[in-house]
Amino acid sequence: MKYAVGVDLGGTSIKAALVEHGVGLVHQTAVPTDAEKGPEAVLDRIEEVVRAMEAVCPDGCAAGVGIGVPGSVNWERTTLIRPANLPGWGVIDVRATLQHRLGRDLPVVVENDASAAALGSAHYGVGKPFDSFIMITLGTGVGGAIIYKNTIFRGTSGAAGEIGHMSIDYDGPASRQGVPGAVEAYIGQRFLSHHARYRLLGRPHSRIHEIGGPDLEDLTPKLLHTAAVEGDENAQGMLAWAGHKLGAVLGSVINLLDIRKVVVGGGVSAADDMILDPAREAIRVYTMPTVREGVEIVRETRGNEVGMLGAAHLVFELLDDSA
Amino acid sequence: MKYAVGVDLGGTSIKAALVEHGVGLVHQTAVPTDAEKGPEAVLDRIEEVVRAMEAVCPDGCAAGVGIGVPGSVNWERTTLIRPANLPGWGVIDVRATLQHRLGRDLPVVVENDASAAALGSAHYGVGKPFDSFIMITLGTGVGGAIIYKNTIFRGTSGAAGEIGHMSIDYDGPASRQGVPGAVEAYIGQRFLSHHARYRLLGRPHSRIHEIGGPDLEDLTPKLLHTAAVEGDENAQGMLAWAGHKLGAVLGSVINLLDIRKVVVGGGVSAADDMILDPAREAIRVYTMPTVREGVEIVRETRGNEVGMLGAAHLVFELLDDSA
Repeated sequence: MKYAVGVDLGGTSIKAALVEHGVGLVHQTAVPTDAEKGPEAVLDRIEEVVRAMEAVCPDGCAAGVGIGVPGSVNWERTTLIRPANLPGWGVIDVRATLQHRLGRDLPVVVENDASAAALGSAHYGVGKPFDSFIMITLGTGVGGAIIYKNTIFRGTSGAAGEIGHMSIDYDGPASRQGVPGAVEAYIGQRFLSHHARYRLLGRPHSRIHEIGGPDLEDLTPKLLHTAAVEGDENAQGMLAWAGHKLGAVLGSVINLLDIRKVVVGGGVSAADDMILDPAREAIRVYTMPTVREGVEIVRETRGNEVGMLGAAHLVFELLDDSA
Repeated sequence: MKYAVGVDLGGTSIKAALVEHGVGLVHQTAVPTDAEKGPEAVLDRIEEVVRAMEAVCPDGCAAGVGIGVPGSVNWERTTLIRPANLPGWGVIDVRATLQHRLGRDLPVVVENDASAAALGSAHYGVGKPFDSFIMITLGTGVGGAIIYKNTIFRGTSGAAGEIGHMSIDYDGPASRQGVPGAVEAYIGQRFLSHHARYRLLGRPHSRIHEIGGPDLEDLTPKLLHTAAVEGDENAQGMLAWAGHKLGAVLGSVINLLDIRKVVVGGGVSAADDMILDPAREAIRVYTMPTVREGVEIVRETRGNEVGMLGAAHLVFELLDDSA
């Protein structure tokens, strides 16, 4: 049980790694997802990367395969259910399919990608010192997961952790899932770009207009960050606005769970303390005094690696339990 | 381990019961809290009710004492920390004090009152069919607790469950703890009365003015309910408004935890479906489609009894674990 394969299935690419238990990544690879070609093509790609990682396994054979997937999974962790970014997918038992393709009953564990990333952070990333923490991933969407006593808190059906769809304003703008005031509708990449463009269009003397073009049509959180670092106050204000929204939802989560450590992963988090410092300030406002002490937000510095590490770790957890 | 004493320490009265394991209340009593006389007087009252319940115990001696308290407790469940409604309390180790007063090392477990009520509901109340549920208590404050796999989810320090202080509007009115948009600042008894008075003052032809007086100075949630039952549309609208806020916060909790059963306890819940039906509607709006199925809100019909039952059950849990 020394090695396992960790797969991070994304909408545009599939990343896979061979992971050594308690040590980390040994080999890794990535291929395009080919999502538009449908589920069979995607499953071909998954099989391909798994075989590639098994082929480089020092002791000849990995103990199993963990797969982080962009959507809901069933309680048994076998099946990915109607992922938004994989057209034509429906409900597919990924474990059975992969076992059939590989011709072996090797252990396969399927888990939501944010939860897999959180588990990776807990055992190989900045989450290591914390036995419980909240993971929030800032990207196209806003993902979340709960690590409680070193493992994933799954709720009653395996769907727990959807921080991005928690409402911070009962009368606010709707997320992709239709929830009014969902925090994703403020700080999800597309929404944040949209809010920023709307607010900054009227301020033509911003530095952001020099780098983002006159119409700001290609305004991304990354561009915002660049302008903010270069001293553009409007861009800084926009990231602080986003940080405030992040802090508001985290305050609610901390009040509810009394879990006071937060690990932030994903793309927008490249904005770092430009977003996180205002979030820290907001958390003080939105938490009760009784849970305010010891609150900490840290950025996951291992980036996307934690997704693969956590996916592989699911296999180690499974085999530990059955041992 | 057949009997234990369950105590519900409130700001105005102390209720206590002798509880038979798996059966329910055998005897009960209540005394005034005498909170204004300070902690020693309150501890006198607790000792008094515990002795009274032990005296009627059929097999001579209760297995221990569980106490639900109005505030935060420490992880070890011995100590009540600075309760808002008990003047001069500070930090008191209730277990040690009570053991000393009784002259015996009998098991004493101290737990937050909403968590105790939730445990009581889980084992003796309407929560019995659910292995996991969210408890929300509507009263002066809005309390909350999480039952996960038949026991209390305590977080990292024992303070989990503060649903009342979760924000449903980052820019909204502040709760007693200063959290902007905390749901308590909408549906806590005093806040709800205040909102209702403000809204209904301008509608002098409401039935509510006949029963609440011209200035509506004594408007309570109970009065609102009476007027609503009698057909007053303004009062009905106000309870629906409250239910919508309740549903908004429950939607966020369900998205985060994937726990889809909700038990509502406490005083305002007397308003029943006048509040809960709008809450049910709102939950559909504020939850993701993936966690919407199977959502259920039920009212705890055993009222305050679940607080004492749950407090006593803490003793049974403790002794089960150590057995």
